[in-house]
Amino acid sequence: MNNIPYKIYLDEAELPKQWYNLRADMKNKPAPLLDPATLQPMTAQALSGVFCEELVKQELDDTTPYIDIPQEIQDYYKTFRPAPLMRAYNLEKALGTPANIYYKFEGNNTSGSHKLNSAIAQAYYAKQQGLKGVTTETGAGQWGTALSMACAYLGLDCKVYMVKVSYEQKPFRREVMRTYGASVVPSPSMDTAVGRKILQEHPGTGGSLGCAISEAVEVATSTPGYRYVLGSVLNQVLLHQSVIGLEAKTALDKYGIKADIVIGCAGGGSNLGGLIAPFVGEKLRGEADYRIIAVEPASCPSFTRGKFVYDFCDTGMICPLAKMYTLGSGFIPAPNHAGGLRFHGMSTTLSQLYHDGLMEATSVEQTAVFAAAEQFARIEGILPAPESSHAIKAAIDEALHCKETGEEKTILFGLTGTGYFDMYAYEAFHDGRMHDYIPTDEDLAPGFASLPKV
Amino acid sequence: MNNIPYKIYLDEAELPKQWYNLRADMKNKPAPLLDPATLQPMTAQALSGVFCEELVKQELDDTTPYIDIPQEIQDYYKTFRPAPLMRAYNLEKALGTPANIYYKFEGNNTSGSHKLNSAIAQAYYAKQQGLKGVTTETGAGQWGTALSMACAYLGLDCKVYMVKVSYEQKPFRREVMRTYGASVVPSPSMDTAVGRKILQEHPGTGGSLGCAISEAVEVATSTPGYRYVLGSVLNQVLLHQSVIGLEAKTALDKYGIKADIVIGCAGGGSNLGGLIAPFVGEKLRGEADYRIIAVEPASCPSFTRGKFVYDFCDTGMICPLAKMYTLGSGFIPAPNHAGGLRFHGMSTTLSQLYHDGLMEATSVEQTAVFAAAEQFARIEGILPAPESSHAIKAAIDEALHCKETGEEKTILFGLTGTGYFDMYAYEAFHDGRMHDYIPTDEDLAPGFASLPKV
Repeated sequence: MNNIPYKIYLDEAELPKQWYNLRADMKNKPAPLLDPATLQPMTAQALSGVFCEELVKQELDDTTPYIDIPQEIQDYYKTFRPAPLMRAYNLEKALGTPANIYYKFEGNNTSGSHKLNSAIAQAYYAKQQGLKGVTTETGAGQWGTALSMACAYLGLDCKVYMVKVSYEQKPFRREVMRTYGASVVPSPSMDTAVGRKILQEHPGTGGSLGCAISEAVEVATSTPGYRYVLGSVLNQVLLHQSVIGLEAKTALDKYGIKADIVIGCAGGGSNLGGLIAPFVGEKLRGEADYRIIAVEPASCPSFTRGKFVYDFCDTGMICPLAKMYTLGSGFIPAPNHAGGLRFHGMSTTLSQLYHDGLMEATSVEQTAVFAAAEQFARIEGILPAPESSHAIKAAIDEALHCKETGEEKTILFGLTGTGYFDMYAYEAFHDGRMHDYIPTDEDLAPGFASLPKV
Repeated sequence: MNNIPYKIYLDEAELPKQWYNLRADMKNKPAPLLDPATLQPMTAQALSGVFCEELVKQELDDTTPYIDIPQEIQDYYKTFRPAPLMRAYNLEKALGTPANIYYKFEGNNTSGSHKLNSAIAQAYYAKQQGLKGVTTETGAGQWGTALSMACAYLGLDCKVYMVKVSYEQKPFRREVMRTYGASVVPSPSMDTAVGRKILQEHPGTGGSLGCAISEAVEVATSTPGYRYVLGSVLNQVLLHQSVIGLEAKTALDKYGIKADIVIGCAGGGSNLGGLIAPFVGEKLRGEADYRIIAVEPASCPSFTRGKFVYDFCDTGMICPLAKMYTLGSGFIPAPNHAGGLRFHGMSTTLSQLYHDGLMEATSVEQTAVFAAAEQFARIEGILPAPESSHAIKAAIDEALHCKETGEEKTILFGLTGTGYFDMYAYEAFHDGRMHDYIPTDEDLAPGFASLPKV
């Protein structure tokens, strides 16, 4: 197998022309979103006040297996895709493992992550609908950057509510978004009723993702010609992100490689759901078997310690209820947690798959994640994002297990992005100021107490 | 020509196996380096106290046209090369030009630039010689990052003297280097005699590249098992960087494309010399003709306003004398100049080519460069480095000229890297705090006065 290159790039003609809608092959469909007021399933009409019409259709469609990627989106994909499938020869050698390690690297674009795959799709449908612009929130800034890039390309207005503490601590991310013409507002702001209320109650607050979501939704629903877009959790996002898995699968198939284990980091599920889609599809259709492993931070363990129940997607409790593995919308991860994997819940699709035993989940601690990140950077060259490094840590552990057992397994993991804008976290790690945090059952109790009675 | 993809990636088998040594085809060779004490050409023996032996050989070799790339360097190149040759379809459309625009993008690696091409080569030869480590200086940090990555991969010690003002203002670059295990020292430091002297004379100084060079050289020459390495200007660096041009040429040839104009930004000449090498080679051998354009900042105009004379390569005046276009080692570019193109001189090879009429040079002003950078980012997606944006500006100008004349010219330019660590400069541009600076003849006078009498 010496003819496998370090990097497999598909030809333009081999790029996916359709997204794969995993839900179509699921026997047990993810539970529908519920209207928090009526506890009835959200209708297309109700959702279309918040989201673009075509995206609402995609959100609710759990029967169509393949959905055409519009030509204009395909063309934009060509500017930064294919993403390379990398063979980690150097890492294998350094670990002394018989395992073959591959990673799908999504960081070779200015957003620095896979987020651009869905951002361009959502912006495209907004433009098709004749809208003037979109609103969103961003925490660490990857999603906001991706959306800014997509909107700049299509000539759409883009308004990003950025968690105030990130806005102040991550001025570079903010400037990248400004370069792409987005208006970036620190949240909470005086722009919205919800922002003004929070500022009145907590004048010095650094904001939260939940509050930023609420502001972005309020502006989208109260401004003619605007809709709200979201970078993770939703079914539509997983649909768009299926390009990750489809490309990876095509590249592996091209070289006759069969993965044994597929590993992805899990926050809201956008990367994991996209990466594993075609592999889980084969499992669901009984065509092949794979071990699928979700890796989450020990500090925010939705899969491994959460409950599979209906919960709010936002801390403001204004969004629909979703049935998912959740720690409760009142759960707040420890402030020292550096990665972007801090969502209290999880994609409904992935939650159902996990509940049905189609995938495993594991949690890893922060300093071990950064140690793996640094090891990986020195050996493989790429400086990984903290989020991606959760998958690296799990992949290294599996490879070392193969070393013990002598098994020549093929491991594929998702390297979602680069850590160029996360150097504060790396600095804390280098200076010994980074600490692990595993919530006790008592720490988790307030989150669970916040769960709605459905 | 619709079958030309947005991105041309060579196969691993098509990657260069030899570097191209442009000097071998030059009738008028670049003038030799002179010992400042004797004014005699520097011998291999004298140079090998500072540089690795194999690199000294490469530095002095102006007759061998092709030099084998050692297998271990080829293997490392495969982790981040080929760099894509991009067709700027979106930019062409936005400009409404009949020109076909291509750019060779070298930013898809963690150093964020082409610097890694030479860093791995220099580190490799140091390791081959049995050395323990290397020293260098860095200003903006691209070269230091690249060298840190190469040394981490090979297990070499790496000591980087970083201009103090950059060390303090660019903590992220510093942390990237630390992630790769380099020790980064703010310069001037108390480590060296030259550092201590400067600190005594100017206690509050923010340092300078010239001072950092002097410190790195002092440590390399006074510590057993260490040598000094440099990221630009030298012939050996241009040799290693020829992979840029060789890959670009192979990709163009593969699709039957003939470039008319080749454009690169010029600081010390590492990118420009690498990009244009095979094209100038064809010119020198009379096989083809190309317009070659060097683009430099109006604030540091070595080619367009400098003198072609012997000068010191460093402001400390301890390095050999080189015959080059220079503003004088006493010239200091305006502090508001944001890019890394602030070297007072220029590669001797490029200087000779320019002197012999084999290439043109032009200078561009800073705010126009950033306007082009922002335009490019929004249209093409990639956030360019300020240095690279000098080439973007010139390429856009040429494409707009084609629009006037109706000529369907093929333009190739070098996009050397990304601007992720340059967001302070973008911020200054966005906030209207960036100003152009064109030195008057009086401003240039002190630099010229510092020229040695040779």
